Amino acid sequence: MPPTNMGHCLTTLPSLRDALDVVSGKWKLLILVALATGHQRFRDIERSVPGISSKVLAKELKDLEQHQLVRRTVQEGPPVLVTYEVLPYADTLDPVIFALREWGLNHRRKIMGTGSEA
Amino acid sequence: MPPTNMGHCLTTLPSLRDALDVVSGKWKLLILVALATGHQRFRDIERSVPGISSKVLAKELKDLEQHQLVRRTVQEGPPVLVTYEVLPYADTLDPVIFALREWGLNHRRKIMGTGSEA
Repeated sequence: MPPTNMGHCLTTLPSLRDALDVVSGKWKLLILVALATGHQRFRDIERSVPGISSKVLAKELKDLEQHQLVRRTVQEGPPVLVTYEVLPYADTLDPVIFALREWGLNHRRKIMGTGSEA
Repeated sequence: MPPTNMGHCLTTLPSLRDALDVVSGKWKLLILVALATGHQRFRDIERSVPGISSKVLAKELKDLEQHQLVRRTVQEGPPVLVTYEVLPYADTLDPVIFALREWGLNHRRKIMGTGSEA
C-alpha cells in the first residue's frame, strides 16, 4: 500500500509538533470552549469540564496564558476576584476545532458501524 | 469581552471530545506521519519520532489499531517479521493535520514576534 496523503506533511513536521505542543492532551481545547461559553471563574470552569482535577486545570490555564490564548485578571478586593477570559487570538484555533469536531462526528459513526466514513 | 467564535462548538462538544480522545497527546499524529512516510517496523518508527519511548510507542500503536487507523501484520518466519501500516481511513485525518500545521506555523510567527497572527 502506498503512503497516504499524510506523507505530504513530512516537510512541515515542526509546525505540526508546535501545534501539538500547545493543544495536545484532551483538556486545553475543552477549557477554551468552556471559557468561550462564559465560564470565567476557576470553579465554574472546573465544573464545566467534567473529569478535570483542580491541579490539572491550574496547570493548563497557566500554559494557555503563556501561549497568549488566555488572560488571567486579578481584581483587588476584598474579596479578591480572579477571572479568566479567552483572548481574541484563540479564534485562530477555530479551524483546528472545526476539523477535530467533524472528524469526531465521522469517527463515531464509523466505530458504531453506521458507515459514511471517507 | 464577548465570547469568541469558539462558543459555536458548545453544541458539539461530544464530537470534539471523541476526536481528542483519539488524537490527544503529541504522539499519535506524529506516529501516523512516520508510518505514512514509509517507516513500517517498530524500530524504524521509534527512530523517526524523536523522544518517544518504546513503551509509549507500543501503547500508541495498539490504540491506533483499535481505532482502525493502523494495521499490524505478522509474517511467520523465521524470522518473524512484524510490520505496521497506516490504513486508508487515516486519510480522513488530513484536514485535522492540515489545520494543526497551519496553526503551528502561525503560532511560531506570533510567539517569535514576527506578526501575521489572526
